[in-house]
Amino acid sequence: MIQKLIDGIRRTGAPVVVGLDPNLSFIPQELLEEAGQAVRNRDAVYEDDLEIAAEAVWHFNKDIIDAVADLVPAVKPQIAMYEQFGIPGLKAFWRTVRYAHEKGLVVIGDVKRGDIGSTSASYAIAHLGRIEVEGSSSRVFDEDFATVNPYLGSDGVKPFIEVCNQNDRGIFVLVKTSNPSSGEFQDLKMEDGRPLYEVVGEKVEEWGRLSMDGEFSNVGAVVGATYPEQGRALRKIMPHAYILVPGYGAQGGKGSDLVHFFREDGLGAIVNSSRGIIAAYKKDAYSKFGPDRFAEAARAAAADMIEDIQGALRGAGIEIR
Amino acid sequence: MIQKLIDGIRRTGAPVVVGLDPNLSFIPQELLEEAGQAVRNRDAVYEDDLEIAAEAVWHFNKDIIDAVADLVPAVKPQIAMYEQFGIPGLKAFWRTVRYAHEKGLVVIGDVKRGDIGSTSASYAIAHLGRIEVEGSSSRVFDEDFATVNPYLGSDGVKPFIEVCNQNDRGIFVLVKTSNPSSGEFQDLKMEDGRPLYEVVGEKVEEWGRLSMDGEFSNVGAVVGATYPEQGRALRKIMPHAYILVPGYGAQGGKGSDLVHFFREDGLGAIVNSSRGIIAAYKKDAYSKFGPDRFAEAARAAAADMIEDIQGALRGAGIEIR
Repeated sequence: MIQKLIDGIRRTGAPVVVGLDPNLSFIPQELLEEAGQAVRNRDAVYEDDLEIAAEAVWHFNKDIIDAVADLVPAVKPQIAMYEQFGIPGLKAFWRTVRYAHEKGLVVIGDVKRGDIGSTSASYAIAHLGRIEVEGSSSRVFDEDFATVNPYLGSDGVKPFIEVCNQNDRGIFVLVKTSNPSSGEFQDLKMEDGRPLYEVVGEKVEEWGRLSMDGEFSNVGAVVGATYPEQGRALRKIMPHAYILVPGYGAQGGKGSDLVHFFREDGLGAIVNSSRGIIAAYKKDAYSKFGPDRFAEAARAAAADMIEDIQGALRGAGIEIR
Repeated sequence: MIQKLIDGIRRTGAPVVVGLDPNLSFIPQELLEEAGQAVRNRDAVYEDDLEIAAEAVWHFNKDIIDAVADLVPAVKPQIAMYEQFGIPGLKAFWRTVRYAHEKGLVVIGDVKRGDIGSTSASYAIAHLGRIEVEGSSSRVFDEDFATVNPYLGSDGVKPFIEVCNQNDRGIFVLVKTSNPSSGEFQDLKMEDGRPLYEVVGEKVEEWGRLSMDGEFSNVGAVVGATYPEQGRALRKIMPHAYILVPGYGAQGGKGSDLVHFFREDGLGAIVNSSRGIIAAYKKDAYSKFGPDRFAEAARAAAADMIEDIQGALRGAGIEIR
């Protein structure tokens, strides 16, 4: 599966993923009102307000996907933003994944799941595999990649890798996250002086050997744009891991911070931006679009982000090839 | 909320939670066939096999809850086992939570969620809080407690605590998990010689001060029954944290291993058993019940587990009071 993502990055020249984290505050009022109308015009089975929110989220996502599908290789829906709207929200997540696939996009489910043994296997089935019931089998949420939390160790991660191998899918394991307090545990120094994130990074490289796909593994890593020095170290520790880089834009990461995450051939990393793209119309730089044209604003912001990253890579003598 | 759980433990004399992890292989064939009939008799909106599985899971859970509701204070549905059946599965999760509440049980959502900032807040809202849409608010999955993964640090945990404080709910933070490979990261020694799980345990105690409820905090910890020595150390490091103890029974933990997790007054810990109770009819000791009477087998296994733990506590001079 990682090769499919790499193909998309080469085709678009954009090592960029658009994060679909549709906070309600990002959704234009008019879209919410239309969703309310649509829900009231049919028989809503559940709580109306969850149905309305989910309907608005789905239409918002659809317009964003239509606006960026030719620019980027992938989208990353953040499931928490859907789970908060309960069953209707998770239906909107499922519709979003399906629609992104129809548009040829790779889908990274940002689910940060992780448990042990058969429980991890169940999460892996839910997001990357097929469930067997009474002899027939079906896809469930059907993402291409899922993010995975490593705190429980190999017992938690290997069941995901097995499902990846059966279904040609991939995972990105949290290694060094983009948030300010990520260092509380991840930066702790071990007896030999290495920080925890390096130990986790070494494990990612080791797990990665269980699922190679060309020169990269289907087991990638999450390393925040806000920590470029750590990114440089981890790029070396995990030569076969693709790095999913959150934290660009709203969280403070800049294009020039990102070059360390890439290899010299321009591969090895894909950078996420969520609110910086999907809520661009709320920023001064794109306010001329207004709430009505939020999707056009998202397209403009995505194009600017791609240019920023390509420029930074070129400045470091890196060309995607 | 922790006081409500303690009240239940005192009322039943049982520091025991029944894990509702309904692996399909635990569900008697007859129940699956009845579920198939029920689904075929109505208009199924989604994939039939997911609907059938979810229907069977729901009836299985309902019978288990009916059989144990007077013996134990709490149940712990493991959401992965429902998520694998997609939208119908998550509806069965929601119905299970609601039914357990109707029966007076405290519900610990074993969701192991964790992210940062507004994303963690969204997970917290989904499981413990209320979502606001257009001025009205509603409960979503509505558990009493949720399990939380600490790898992302305070940015990931504090949004849960805020939602707990607004809604009188609680969390159990993963500290030392019950699985064989939990030591890969959790046991790593820091420069000062302390293992990582102790550092995380200290943070749990610190976070706990943000949500005290009587002499215990609404911020508890998960420590596996399979690591009794670590349990003893963590009991001291986290004097205000209730400990949720998985790994009893199927994973190898015994009653006598558990005494270290409790305080001398018998409070401070609650022990989970999942398949040891809900799939008891498949074990030799309870096979006389047969698949038809799986719920009675579960009741017998729960009663035996309570006796085992009470006996071990008495043997150590501990009486719940």
